[in-house]
Amino acid sequence: MSAASPSHDANAPLVLRDDRDGVATLTLNRPHARNALSVGLMGALQDALETVHEDRSVRAVVLAGAGPGFCAGHDLKEIRANPTEASHEALFAQCAKLMLTISRVRQPVIAKVHGIATAAGCQLVATCDLAYCADNARFATPGVNIGLFCSTPMVALTRAVGRKAAMEMLLLGDMIDAEEAERIGLVNRAVPIDQLDEVVDGVAGKIASKSPLTLAVGKEAFYRQIDLDVEAAYAYAARVMTENMMARDAAEGIDAFIGKRAPVWCGQ
Amino acid sequence: MSAASPSHDANAPLVLRDDRDGVATLTLNRPHARNALSVGLMGALQDALETVHEDRSVRAVVLAGAGPGFCAGHDLKEIRANPTEASHEALFAQCAKLMLTISRVRQPVIAKVHGIATAAGCQLVATCDLAYCADNARFATPGVNIGLFCSTPMVALTRAVGRKAAMEMLLLGDMIDAEEAERIGLVNRAVPIDQLDEVVDGVAGKIASKSPLTLAVGKEAFYRQIDLDVEAAYAYAARVMTENMMARDAAEGIDAFIGKRAPVWCGQ
Amino acid sequence: MSAASPSHDANAPLVLRDDRDGVATLTLNRPHARNALSVGLMGALQDALETVHEDRSVRAVVLAGAGPGFCAGHDLKEIRANPTEASHEALFAQCAKLMLTISRVRQPVIAKVHGIATAAGCQLVATCDLAYCADNARFATPGVNIGLFCSTPMVALTRAVGRKAAMEMLLLGDMIDAEEAERIGLVNRAVPIDQLDEVVDGVAGKIASKSPLTLAVGKEAFYRQIDLDVEAAYAYAARVMTENMMARDAAEGIDAFIGKRAPVWCGQ
Repeated sequence: MSAASPSHDANAPLVLRDDRDGVATLTLNRPHARNALSVGLMGALQDALETVHEDRSVRAVVLAGAGPGFCAGHDLKEIRANPTEASHEALFAQCAKLMLTISRVRQPVIAKVHGIATAAGCQLVATCDLAYCADNARFATPGVNIGLFCSTPMVALTRAVGRKAAMEMLLLGDMIDAEEAERIGLVNRAVPIDQLDEVVDGVAGKIASKSPLTLAVGKEAFYRQIDLDVEAAYAYAARVMTENMMARDAAEGIDAFIGKRAPVWCGQ
Repeated sequence: MSAASPSHDANAPLVLRDDRDGVATLTLNRPHARNALSVGLMGALQDALETVHEDRSVRAVVLAGAGPGFCAGHDLKEIRANPTEASHEALFAQCAKLMLTISRVRQPVIAKVHGIATAAGCQLVATCDLAYCADNARFATPGVNIGLFCSTPMVALTRAVGRKAAMEMLLLGDMIDAEEAERIGLVNRAVPIDQLDEVVDGVAGKIASKSPLTLAVGKEAFYRQIDLDVEAAYAYAARVMTENMMARDAAEGIDAFIGKRAPVWCGQ
Repeated sequence: MSAASPSHDANAPLVLRDDRDGVATLTLNRPHARNALSVGLMGALQDALETVHEDRSVRAVVLAGAGPGFCAGHDLKEIRANPTEASHEALFAQCAKLMLTISRVRQPVIAKVHGIATAAGCQLVATCDLAYCADNARFATPGVNIGLFCSTPMVALTRAVGRKAAMEMLLLGDMIDAEEAERIGLVNRAVPIDQLDEVVDGVAGKIASKSPLTLAVGKEAFYRQIDLDVEAAYAYAARVMTENMMARDAAEGIDAFIGKRAPVWCGQ
């Protein structure tokens, strides 16, 4: 959450997109508001993700924040300027849709976190498929401090980390540091800030070298099977594997592996 | 579990309650039986929790044990003295109700653990919203050693820690130490025994300074959303956020945050 | 997965069984194919597990691999030699059934891992009730590298470790080492390779000393309650505890505990 002022430049795009070698980097761009998730910014990110989902040239997505931090959560001034039940309902529905969209776009989405990631900003980190952070990163679900419990961030947080760790963040509202975020599993790894670009480029680049079809199949299956009981999950996953085997990329990949050569994916 | 004798003083209350600055400390008080959960003690704790739940002066609850340890589980002598199916059924139903009540009282419940926490005592720790332990704490689910698998403690344990760690405790029945309990996520933190009071006072005091309404909303939502699939969880949590926003404490909290002043909660 | 050649000796049993003091060790025995899970090997392991399940002399099962590593996953050459949808469907159904059987045999199953455990080999480790590995162990779900996402291994992996850790293994397909496997909870413990036998013997021997009935009751309850919501889990587990209490081994175990003597289990 952020009480900071909106960005100087009202005409700057709220989300920047930069494509390189199959990796689309989406950068939250309200730096003077610590990238607070205004209705406008959430809309721009929703649009960017839906566009990326349809873009077969994109193999991996990086989500980053412009300015001193990753994302400070919802825009509290905007929320208080529209204090009706209907506007709150619309806001949290939009936010939930955005988070579900991150889990549903074809490509893996990697959070690249520096500075603060709080409230819905922390939720973004918990929601992304992978997350890497700089050693200056700080995470919190501080809604409890302002009387507004982080109930929607909690949905993502409790699915990423253990219950005791999640409850402590939610009830105390305190910042945790990068090392602790790694320890509890909120991020995959915390690295020195001057290595963050390199680490995320490495991960995104490696993912971008895989079969896009296979990544899409696997990501969808990950989230579908995880909410099923184990027997249903196996029945579903076995069907997914069979369909995956019948696709050209699996035959090509296996033959390349057996023949000790590099595979050539359909999507390339 | 405990085979020790009952307390000297048959008239001492089985659960002590001490209130200070909005924090109610409930102390299991069968020290000579290592606080074994007799039918009487479980009943006294159930009553104390239900009373606390209705008491708006209480903002946080600490659960502690008198004497050398936290809690040694069920009272085995009592169990063997009533060896009927009906009495066993009643006992485990009472225990399950007690554990669910900890998750359902309005206030966060913090386990403050020293010495042993075994079987249903370990279950109490796993069940509390937060848990802090002294470096002399030891945890086990040792039912397997006496032919009585810790099946009900398992419900709480497997929701607090990873499967491999839970299975090892359950199948081997061995004690784990404070450091290991922290590592696997059974407790939030292990601290030197002479700092345990201070650490728990700090956590409870911080929680007691929050809006009681917000804490109650958040705690209820935590346990309700966690058993839903992610889409249902978001639909539910978005409604909770909206209702929370419409309550006075959220407006007050946000306005105080924007205005850089301390909030004044309704409940105060 | 493995592209290695099949074993020299076509007549060697695909799964070796060695019984000692109530512990049955099942060894995957296609060392020259890095124990790749051919249809034949999966069938032999299925048979061995079903036989063990009915054998009341067996109290604990150890699953190990012959040769340089634990298990390299499915047999890719065999898969490519039978490239029909029906054969793939049969293969993944057989594999899913095998994994579910590990969770359903009466006795605890302990993975003893050295060298590589990849793809369905990593799934075996994630599926076993307990897992211990040598410091030379390496784990991966590398299907993404050959166009065939590890969707069925994912079912087991995501139930053993946190989401971020699982997703990184699945999307990158990289090897993780023994220390990292312990950190994320994929194995209970990583030990120097020259201590692996001793550690696993110790764990299996300790389990074999417990009441077989109690172990069977507890293991079944573990997997049944874990997919239920908490209230249903308690209702179920309370019934299990009551039935367990009514069995002779619990009465004997408690009386032995109170009487400070060693219990004599029915099954002995």
